[in-house]
Amino acid sequence: MKINGQHYRTIWPDSRLKFVHIIDQTLLPHSFEAVQIHSVEAMELAIKTMQVRGAPLIGAASAYGVALAMLYDDSDASLARSCDDLLATRPTAVNLQWALQRMHKHLTSIEPKLRYVNAWKEAARICDEDVKLNQVIAQHGLKLIQDMDASKNRPLNILTHCNAGWLAAVDWGTALAPIYAAHDAGIAVHVWVDETRPRNQGASLTAWELGQHGVPHTVISDNAGGHLMQHGQVDMVIVGADRVASNGDVCNKIGTYLKALAAFDNDVPFYAAVPSPTIDWSMTDGAGIPIEERSADEVAWVQGRLASGEVAKVNVLPEGSPAANPAFDVTPARLVTGIITERGVCAPSQLSKLLRSDHHALYA
Amino acid sequence: MKINGQHYRTIWPDSRLKFVHIIDQTLLPHSFEAVQIHSVEAMELAIKTMQVRGAPLIGAASAYGVALAMLYDDSDASLARSCDDLLATRPTAVNLQWALQRMHKHLTSIEPKLRYVNAWKEAARICDEDVKLNQVIAQHGLKLIQDMDASKNRPLNILTHCNAGWLAAVDWGTALAPIYAAHDAGIAVHVWVDETRPRNQGASLTAWELGQHGVPHTVISDNAGGHLMQHGQVDMVIVGADRVASNGDVCNKIGTYLKALAAFDNDVPFYAAVPSPTIDWSMTDGAGIPIEERSADEVAWVQGRLASGEVAKVNVLPEGSPAANPAFDVTPARLVTGIITERGVCAPSQLSKLLRSDHHALYA
Repeated sequence: MKINGQHYRTIWPDSRLKFVHIIDQTLLPHSFEAVQIHSVEAMELAIKTMQVRGAPLIGAASAYGVALAMLYDDSDASLARSCDDLLATRPTAVNLQWALQRMHKHLTSIEPKLRYVNAWKEAARICDEDVKLNQVIAQHGLKLIQDMDASKNRPLNILTHCNAGWLAAVDWGTALAPIYAAHDAGIAVHVWVDETRPRNQGASLTAWELGQHGVPHTVISDNAGGHLMQHGQVDMVIVGADRVASNGDVCNKIGTYLKALAAFDNDVPFYAAVPSPTIDWSMTDGAGIPIEERSADEVAWVQGRLASGEVAKVNVLPEGSPAANPAFDVTPARLVTGIITERGVCAPSQLSKLLRSDHHALYA
Repeated sequence: MKINGQHYRTIWPDSRLKFVHIIDQTLLPHSFEAVQIHSVEAMELAIKTMQVRGAPLIGAASAYGVALAMLYDDSDASLARSCDDLLATRPTAVNLQWALQRMHKHLTSIEPKLRYVNAWKEAARICDEDVKLNQVIAQHGLKLIQDMDASKNRPLNILTHCNAGWLAAVDWGTALAPIYAAHDAGIAVHVWVDETRPRNQGASLTAWELGQHGVPHTVISDNAGGHLMQHGQVDMVIVGADRVASNGDVCNKIGTYLKALAAFDNDVPFYAAVPSPTIDWSMTDGAGIPIEERSADEVAWVQGRLASGEVAKVNVLPEGSPAANPAFDVTPARLVTGIITERGVCAPSQLSKLLRSDHHALYA
């Protein structure tokens, strides 16, 4: 993705493989800053504090976290400890577990002194694969948008929740990838962006991304989407996912379930864009997916720009009022029209058939 | 309702009937200030800017607006103009229209020089009636809560959206009135308070009210309620309404529909507390109810306290990203378990039978 004319990924290694660059997403949309991560502990903190966030990106970030650990200590103990500590940073997105298992498996088979260089290579492969997966998802999703566009004589209105764009992945994004592809193909798309309280990833990140790419969009409160659907103002919903169970239940940012209910109630197609590392085949359904409870401070304190331009946080709660902050919910498969994967689009019930078949190449 | 030990209504006339006191709700929860309204134009502005808001309260406020107009000019033209201008302040809550029609009808039959004193009397009657209606609604809703309480061995969890409490009415409130009654009756209730973006009436007003009354509560983002219902953490939803159609379709603050869908999907009873002035018998269903589109600035700018304690607004949007702000939505009657009126609780389809029967006294 280009920012002010320059191509960026969300994460990239220093050329000497001594540290990692990330974009500090807690500063967006008010300032765009790349920061350096020099240790596994710093990467853990970056994931916990959501300087990097989004299921595919935290998978990639955790892989680089292991690479940073190997730089200083390539022992079995260091490998095990770094994987454990990185896994504990956030519980819901399965990509973290997927990437760490891959790194651990790959590196345990390699003698310690070769781990450092191989860890950086494997982390880079995870990043490159993420980009490819998302490019393929973009094309599969594009077909859905083209089909819908053919039946309308006006710009298509697509609603999305949270941020499953470029910033949530290494590049392109999941839910936004088909939208970028459609926009680039000359299809008139307009995106309703749920602001996505409490952390406002929609207002802060998705709106900013879309603006950078020139995609027409309008930010709405999370409360508004149902009303827009009742009035024919939403043609399609596309969201990302943090973990998808093998039955197609979709765990995603809190509030996704409410939009899926409204889409179902108004016959609006509801899609989740899901690269295979986001699928947890060990979960038969979504009931067992751990839902992260984040700090109540995220509900209380809202970050933005003062009229002076200075970035500040304000507390919106009365003194003494507590808050709760479950960060994800599970949308039952029955409400999901289709899942957009790197192998094509399928009904939730067909996920295993589509993705676990050996008849398909990884990037069909 | 008592604030710091002193009883308040949300609106009250000066003892010389020369101006009206209101509580400036745009300053809550950060400061509690009563301000004086000295003209119909000032009252129009107070309604437009939501210094006073909430369907029952803006009805009462508009009645006092007419009274203020009569203070300075008791002509037919002044009466007509003040009613027209007050009606134009906000389109959705039917209480405005109800109160203004009542004032207009009452005053046109009275010779101009007597209008001033009668206008203040009629406005006071509207306020007193509102209090009585809400007290009766409290008792009818209390029975629902008592019945549910009898089946649980733990505190009841009631979810509410926006503010339909004391601050939305002259006193007591509609949706919160049964909750205050239950709390006062010794029933252990805990309220999930939707923050209610974009204006945060839940976080700013409902949480503050409940805190002042000592009712246990937790503020949540508007996205969280569906997840809580999926996990058995909501026993009942009670909301207010801005206009109810004769078929029981409930128009209320944007996002109410999403909570009603989630309640329906999880077998959680969903009630709207509705005094009869909020019912628009001329609307056969909710489709014709005008939905106010408010300023995009309400989505962009969030008010709160800086760490210093100073109240400030921050802009949460990227520069150049537009926003849209529909302020209400319509919950179809099929999703509503019951409507709590001053004549008892009924299914939406029974509203006309319950309320338009001559066999009932107004305050049964």
